[in-house]
Amino acid sequence: MFRFGKLHRSLSKVAKKGQTAVYSQRRCIQARSFLPGLASRTAGTPSATAQVTGGNKQHVHPHGNSVNSGHEEHNTRWPRKVFSGIQPTGSLHLGNYLGAVRKWVQLQNARDDVTVCIVDLHSITMPHNPPLLRENIFTMAATLLACGIDPTKSTLFVQSAVAEHAEFNWILSSLTTMPRLAQLPQFREKSRLLKDVPLGLYVYPVLQAADIMLYKSTHVPVGADQIQHIQLAQHLARIYNGRYGETFPVCTAIIEDGDASRVLSLRDPSKKMSKSEANPKATINLCDSPDLITQKIKKAVTDFTSDITYNPGKRAGVSNLVNIHAQVTGQSIKTVVNEAATLDTAKYKDRVAEAVVEHLRPIREQIHHHMTKRNEMIYLLEVGAEKARQQARQTLNDVKQRLGLGTSANIPAAVHVAPLLPAPDISKTSASRRMSKDFDGNVHERHERMYGFGDQPSGGAGQSATGEVADMPQAVVPRVIRRAPIVPTQSMRVEKQLGSTRTRHVSRWTPAMLRI
Amino acid sequence: MFRFGKLHRSLSKVAKKGQTAVYSQRRCIQARSFLPGLASRTAGTPSATAQVTGGNKQHVHPHGNSVNSGHEEHNTRWPRKVFSGIQPTGSLHLGNYLGAVRKWVQLQNARDDVTVCIVDLHSITMPHNPPLLRENIFTMAATLLACGIDPTKSTLFVQSAVAEHAEFNWILSSLTTMPRLAQLPQFREKSRLLKDVPLGLYVYPVLQAADIMLYKSTHVPVGADQIQHIQLAQHLARIYNGRYGETFPVCTAIIEDGDASRVLSLRDPSKKMSKSEANPKATINLCDSPDLITQKIKKAVTDFTSDITYNPGKRAGVSNLVNIHAQVTGQSIKTVVNEAATLDTAKYKDRVAEAVVEHLRPIREQIHHHMTKRNEMIYLLEVGAEKARQQARQTLNDVKQRLGLGTSANIPAAVHVAPLLPAPDISKTSASRRMSKDFDGNVHERHERMYGFGDQPSGGAGQSATGEVADMPQAVVPRVIRRAPIVPTQSMRVEKQLGSTRTRHVSRWTPAMLRI
Ligand SMILES: Nc1ncnc2c1ncn2[C@@H]1O[C@H](COP(=O)(O)OC(=O)[C@@H](N)Cc2c[nH]c3ccccc23)[C@@H](O)[C@H]1O
Ligand SMILES: Nc1ncnc2c1ncn2[C@@H]1O[C@H](COP(=O)(O)OC(=O)[C@@H](N)Cc2c[nH]c3ccccc23)[C@@H](O)[C@H]1O
Repeated sequence: MFRFGKLHRSLSKVAKKGQTAVYSQRRCIQARSFLPGLASRTAGTPSATAQVTGGNKQHVHPHGNSVNSGHEEHNTRWPRKVFSGIQPTGSLHLGNYLGAVRKWVQLQNARDDVTVCIVDLHSITMPHNPPLLRENIFTMAATLLACGIDPTKSTLFVQSAVAEHAEFNWILSSLTTMPRLAQLPQFREKSRLLKDVPLGLYVYPVLQAADIMLYKSTHVPVGADQIQHIQLAQHLARIYNGRYGETFPVCTAIIEDGDASRVLSLRDPSKKMSKSEANPKATINLCDSPDLITQKIKKAVTDFTSDITYNPGKRAGVSNLVNIHAQVTGQSIKTVVNEAATLDTAKYKDRVAEAVVEHLRPIREQIHHHMTKRNEMIYLLEVGAEKARQQARQTLNDVKQRLGLGTSANIPAAVHVAPLLPAPDISKTSASRRMSKDFDGNVHERHERMYGFGDQPSGGAGQSATGEVADMPQAVVPRVIRRAPIVPTQSMRVEKQLGSTRTRHVSRWTPAMLRI
Repeated sequence: MFRFGKLHRSLSKVAKKGQTAVYSQRRCIQARSFLPGLASRTAGTPSATAQVTGGNKQHVHPHGNSVNSGHEEHNTRWPRKVFSGIQPTGSLHLGNYLGAVRKWVQLQNARDDVTVCIVDLHSITMPHNPPLLRENIFTMAATLLACGIDPTKSTLFVQSAVAEHAEFNWILSSLTTMPRLAQLPQFREKSRLLKDVPLGLYVYPVLQAADIMLYKSTHVPVGADQIQHIQLAQHLARIYNGRYGETFPVCTAIIEDGDASRVLSLRDPSKKMSKSEANPKATINLCDSPDLITQKIKKAVTDFTSDITYNPGKRAGVSNLVNIHAQVTGQSIKTVVNEAATLDTAKYKDRVAEAVVEHLRPIREQIHHHMTKRNEMIYLLEVGAEKARQQARQTLNDVKQRLGLGTSANIPAAVHVAPLLPAPDISKTSASRRMSKDFDGNVHERHERMYGFGDQPSGGAGQSATGEVADMPQAVVPRVIRRAPIVPTQSMRVEKQLGSTRTRHVSRWTPAMLRI
């Protein structure tokens, strides 16, 4: 378990500004060369790992369930970089833990370069209570430390402490089209609960893409509910790269295989276990007392059959318990079911409760330990933020350069300031010169103008960056600007289809094309 | 005119971090006490000034056209602070200059605390050309300096250099409802030109509100086309103040009276002169050569009547020329029309052209001067950004505190971390306890949870900040959250109604209720 003194000693590594990114990358490349693969790192847990990538060609990958050429590509072209985020809604529930956080710790301990972000800016997109939010940030930090996130190995920080997230979110907003967002299921689900939908809820996944891309993340370990958000990040990376030059890897989602990626509600096993669940008995929290955990599991909704079988499609409630049981004991589903052969549901629930309580006991104690050391947490989160900031700043400076934002001394060579010249006869310039080829090769109408000192009509919308002058009668200007989509609409593939919210077993997940 | 050495000498004022904001405020309060009023400061120009405020009660104000009690209120409660922004689309056109920039210079020279922001982040919300944008930022800076913005008196900076704009934009996104934005005319107008509407175009006015509010601006001098955007800023200031405590003044728009606030296109006088106008002959730019200006004015669309009269409703083209003529010579409309009694339109155009060329000649020379000194501009814009940053940071830190973002050591007193306690019987707690009163007095469902260590069900959505525990069957939870609107929908008043895009004379503008 992480202890504060260790962090303090490791600070010298961060002291020299700007070195972190390089250091991390080196460490990451090393990690790749001496670690045979993801599968070996996750030994001891019953789950394998599926990866969702943005590419097209599929083949089996030794380290996970199935990946595609896109993954291979950035595994060699980009240093491996793991990033994930979590909303500060108090302590973790078992779904967060089994679906995501445990994986982060495994990857960290396998020497991956892991960044974990407590996304407080995401948490204000629904009505919130400020003192509670502040408190929840600390509880979340304490819980992540208790689960094994080690700030001497990983980067742990609070999102709002790194301004670049919001800055990059704005920039990506200009690359995101509105219809693309309105489809996203989380938006549709949450906005249904609100009378006046806040804009933040709509823009939410763009900020998430900014989180991921700022660190040039190649791998994003998440639960299955985040797939669509990861796909938006993949989409925006491609759009950006296509328009401004290769800058970002197209990230791969790492999703636990089997049911770990979708732990279900104890009260309604047709839904996932969720923080926003109204009924507190539906959710097991990592800081719940043993008694409370036992109570919740005993009251878990099952069915009228008393024997223990694993059939997520037909017996979602019992299967969810079997899955949780297997996850926390590290046994296979089969072993768990076999060993429960003589038990009825009531007795089996006692056994599951016991296993969960035992698994969570040390975590609970560690949460308590860290919660009593708030100043240490403030300090280590600030150290984490500084580490993150260095890398984020580097990325954002490059982005600003490429977009022509700001006043960097690095002046784009393509532009020259027109000197005082005699006036060309603007009436002679043809309409076709008023159309100019954009960076991505699409013809569209310019909306800015250039500084053309002297006798040139510098105010015209049709003047090009090289100082060409043109004129065009109003009627000839096309009013609708057509951009060919930079990413073909069907180019994204997911390995799992997530159409319904009912529980499914991994064998029923088939590769499917999703329309973006 | 501004010279670089002056700025250099004035830098000692900024050197000590954090002092600027206080200094500016003091200077501003002084300015108020020894300057009798706005009217006297604008002497020499034919235009009076109208102010658009967010309040209800109207009365005549000695310093402008008409204001309301809201204005009086923040004139005494908040230090006077002038802010405005302009997109870096090359040099100014005559509309920008007469409608806005000239006013900024007047206010600055009357010792107001003026901040001028070159809003490059706003300029990427439409498809853009990066090297051109970079170039245009410098052209805009050179032009503003040439017009008399003096960085030793005012704060001049580029938006993307101050991260707080984007950060605050995100925070305000959570206070903005989606229908509120979709109505805004600029969005509707610009999105019509695009096939895939970028999200940035939609969020645009929220960033503008962030610009204004970050500096606790009380007065925003703009052209008439910006009224709806200012109203959104007023709206968001009220929403914020209502929810998180009095933090922001409700700003007042300062809009030039008469036609200065709406200089019209030379090619189509039913539209305003605009940077995005396709026909370069429609727009006079401050760096256009004398010949080009003369050429554009000679070709200005008028009508078949040859004598010169002022009748914006019926003779928009000629009246636009009369207005421009009056504005650049500082004469009244009446004088201008009387002196043109013997002229026909063709001859009158020569006279107008001559007046415009003379007025713009020194500005054009200054633009050229500054454009040759790019490194000085980079330097002074960075000094401006640092001044702005200090104030912006102060505001944003306070905002983050109040919203519970981050890990500031300043822990809200209202929250306590529950110690290890025996488990309450959660089944006994009534459903009504699961509803909690929010800050603004509206009952709604909580979506976060609190750290409740020990035997409490800390994961439930219904737990309150004081550690109350409750339980509620799923079906009883209200699925639709209703918030009473914090600002009544009809509470905003404007002094000018801007329904149509045709030119109107000030006497035809009547106070009107706008539906927000
Ligand atoms: N019942 C469940 N079963 C299995 N896994 C689950 C279950 N419930 C939650 N998870 C996973 O827990 C992680 C954190 O959840 P959040 O809702 O905070 O997660 C969210 O709300 C994100 N938008 C936070 C975020 C912001 N920026 C990011 C960048 C990368 C990755 C993630 C983020 C997630 O991985 C989630 O999939
Ligand atoms: N034909 C005309 N007649 C009279 N006035 C006109 C005419 N055309 C333009 N203006 C005024 O010029 C200023 C700058 O215009 P922008 O379009 O860049 O202005 C815009 O696009 C703003 N969204 C920039 C902005 C961003 N943040 C801000 C905060 C406060 C004020 C302004 C801003 C404006 O005052 C505009 O009203």
